[in-house]
Amino acid sequence: MKYLFVISLFLSLFSVSAQSDEEVIRTIYDQSLSNGKSYEWLDYLSNEIGGRLSGSLNAEKAVAYTKEELDKLGLDKVWLQPVMVPKWTRGVPEYAFIESTPGNTTQVNICALGGSIATPDSGLKAHVIEVQTIEELKELGKEAVEGKIVFFNRPMNEKLISTFMAYGGCVDQRYAGAMEAGKLGASGVIVRSMNLRLDDYPHTGSMTYGDIPPSQRIPAAAISTNDAELLSSMLKIDNSIKFFFKQNCRQFKDVQSYNVIGQITGSEFPEEIMVVGGHLDSWDLGDGSHDDGAGVVQSMDVLRLLKESGIKPKRTIRVVLFMNEENGLRGGNKYAEVAKQKNENHVFALESDAGGFTPRGFSFDCSDANFEQVLSWKPLFKPYLIHYFEKGGSGADVGPLKQSNNVLAGLRPDSQRYFDYHHAANDTFEHVNKRELELGAATMTSLIYLFDKYGINPISKQKTIKD
Amino acid sequence: MKYLFVISLFLSLFSVSAQSDEEVIRTIYDQSLSNGKSYEWLDYLSNEIGGRLSGSLNAEKAVAYTKEELDKLGLDKVWLQPVMVPKWTRGVPEYAFIESTPGNTTQVNICALGGSIATPDSGLKAHVIEVQTIEELKELGKEAVEGKIVFFNRPMNEKLISTFMAYGGCVDQRYAGAMEAGKLGASGVIVRSMNLRLDDYPHTGSMTYGDIPPSQRIPAAAISTNDAELLSSMLKIDNSIKFFFKQNCRQFKDVQSYNVIGQITGSEFPEEIMVVGGHLDSWDLGDGSHDDGAGVVQSMDVLRLLKESGIKPKRTIRVVLFMNEENGLRGGNKYAEVAKQKNENHVFALESDAGGFTPRGFSFDCSDANFEQVLSWKPLFKPYLIHYFEKGGSGADVGPLKQSNNVLAGLRPDSQRYFDYHHAANDTFEHVNKRELELGAATMTSLIYLFDKYGINPISKQKTIKD
Repeated sequence: MKYLFVISLFLSLFSVSAQSDEEVIRTIYDQSLSNGKSYEWLDYLSNEIGGRLSGSLNAEKAVAYTKEELDKLGLDKVWLQPVMVPKWTRGVPEYAFIESTPGNTTQVNICALGGSIATPDSGLKAHVIEVQTIEELKELGKEAVEGKIVFFNRPMNEKLISTFMAYGGCVDQRYAGAMEAGKLGASGVIVRSMNLRLDDYPHTGSMTYGDIPPSQRIPAAAISTNDAELLSSMLKIDNSIKFFFKQNCRQFKDVQSYNVIGQITGSEFPEEIMVVGGHLDSWDLGDGSHDDGAGVVQSMDVLRLLKESGIKPKRTIRVVLFMNEENGLRGGNKYAEVAKQKNENHVFALESDAGGFTPRGFSFDCSDANFEQVLSWKPLFKPYLIHYFEKGGSGADVGPLKQSNNVLAGLRPDSQRYFDYHHAANDTFEHVNKRELELGAATMTSLIYLFDKYGINPISKQKTIKD
Repeated sequence: MKYLFVISLFLSLFSVSAQSDEEVIRTIYDQSLSNGKSYEWLDYLSNEIGGRLSGSLNAEKAVAYTKEELDKLGLDKVWLQPVMVPKWTRGVPEYAFIESTPGNTTQVNICALGGSIATPDSGLKAHVIEVQTIEELKELGKEAVEGKIVFFNRPMNEKLISTFMAYGGCVDQRYAGAMEAGKLGASGVIVRSMNLRLDDYPHTGSMTYGDIPPSQRIPAAAISTNDAELLSSMLKIDNSIKFFFKQNCRQFKDVQSYNVIGQITGSEFPEEIMVVGGHLDSWDLGDGSHDDGAGVVQSMDVLRLLKESGIKPKRTIRVVLFMNEENGLRGGNKYAEVAKQKNENHVFALESDAGGFTPRGFSFDCSDANFEQVLSWKPLFKPYLIHYFEKGGSGADVGPLKQSNNVLAGLRPDSQRYFDYHHAANDTFEHVNKRELELGAATMTSLIYLFDKYGINPISKQKTIKD
């Protein structure tokens, strides 16, 4: 009897390590789908707090809430990492119309781009010149552009399967359009929303004035895709129509904020750090459920799911909820700066910042040897329909952690619906499906489990030699 | 010059056949994503016609509309195939409540199951007995069940990745629950909706009384998942509570309806027929956008996309819009019956009846040799993130076409959200994403293109020998 007891104790103590990778990953998915916390956390973040623009009261509420929830998980360490962030406010809602003839107006849906200056108090009214590209704008030159509102109307390429590729092919209009038009003396900029669908939502997002002088800085707004089509059609009939808009946004001094960090300290190689994260800030129009509430709660649940699945990591696993990805990347940069100061060894970092949709796989920023290792794990993911393992980008917030021999990765969910909601008022909780969100959390946890168990190839070899 | 002209004519005539499969498939996806008709057709079917229950006026409107649209495509032949279908009507909306004590009631959301009888005009009120399975019901026996309302409350298994597997593990309660409870003298049946999400929508669906005598036939309804949870909680506190429901459904005599069929006749092997289809009928609560408006419009667009992409099929391609999949499968059976009478050779049939979500691949019902052929095409689909090629079921409507040496297939879209909408009032147009729908149509067209070009292995070999 005693002998049996010892065997049974032995088996229970080593139950996880005795399980095959298939079994452990099955447990992780089971836990996430039947006992996950990500959806409940997202409900609070989205519906009780809401949009969390850097420097806002809501952003600070999100810091406090997520720290409190991480504290409850019984991690080895939870802390706030101070970071100064920009504070830009939208003010009272924007107002815009197309004026075909004096007094004959059609109201349209716009929103100020993040970082834009306001219009004059009385608004801005001017003739409109439509262009498809910044190059086209430059060719037109100062004479054609001066005093006008430049309307950037290049749509996202609907033929691309990855909507992120389509976004990448268009976002220069939003980011740099006002700077380039300002240099040529334009009075304002209107940009077609980065949205593949025709609807009434304007989509905000970051923009820059670069280093142009304040005198050349002009107000910039996004217009809904339906209204971009309308404006373009009306211009084709009569290019003497005018556009009016008024926006009341304002840039303040930087304010204090925080990255929220929680850690399970590794049992064997505590100095090898693996990060999983998303960004805690969001734009202000919706509640930021997909961008990036989803990534935040999934990352939090990775640490919880490891514990719930009985996995004791050999390496240190850190969840990092980055502040200010949207309009500054201050959180991502600060985290990497502190890591460097402390000479920390970040062997792996995984980001979820592409929406809470059905996960399809990961993209990796790593060496060929590391990528080979990842590909060897692909069969383990097949039962969960995770099939996409490609080299490519990882994520904005973990990017600053890149070193020659570590691995960065980004979760890649199905991208078809992402830009329906991205940076718009309809990025809200009801557009996140519970199961899709939970499958993402389980997929992330499974990859973290594998990297923790097998290590990062070249580094682990160094370790073995050193040890 | 003349020589050049001849070369150029030659090249333009053979432009499609000169293209690689990669190029042709790229063209098909480009066409669907930038010039598809599926979404426009679905808009009409869903928003102008609406729910299309067999035997209803709407079902006949859908027959007329889709025939008219197929007529416009310039196919070689478009026709209606007569089929008699059942006619069951819901009547005025159902009404139900839980009565904790006389006069103390809580209203709940139910809907009659398709094919159920009505309650008495004054409704039905009785004590409730909750069971998880039909086996549990049988074990309880007549004494425990007689006169009571049996409440089947087994939830779908959330741990399964395929929600169709979870559905398959639960749907016996809905399909056979009333028959089994009726045999034991129950007065009515309430079934937890086949829905993985907790919400307020009751989900209808087909049920059977088998061959039990009319005296044992009892009314059956589905209850929303939220209300199933509520009822179960209340029963745990007090099992003397009563349930009241009133429903007014009615079965009429069979009525005349039609399968809608369109054809491109093959240029080389016209006697080899390839079918692509979905079902034109739907349940009555929503507008049937996912089930199966999506499959209908995708199948129609397959023939149109072949034409728009400059593909002239060697084999005969038929779109078949089947009537009465939901509560009888009369259309699918009739089509196969006529095909047999005419001694038609159906070499391939593809069904889309799993929602208009992002396509992930196909399941196949075929020989190992045919499946090997399919797997050799898998790399062609990789750029479109189509990765799921597995042996398994095809679809209910094409099932009757099965022969030993042909290939049946079913489109497999992402299944996570399907049962949020399935057979419920929220299966509506706004829950279908245009791009996801169009990607499905392109994926189907690409598979049809490949089977047309390369033939079905064993049959093609016979042909080669015979020819």
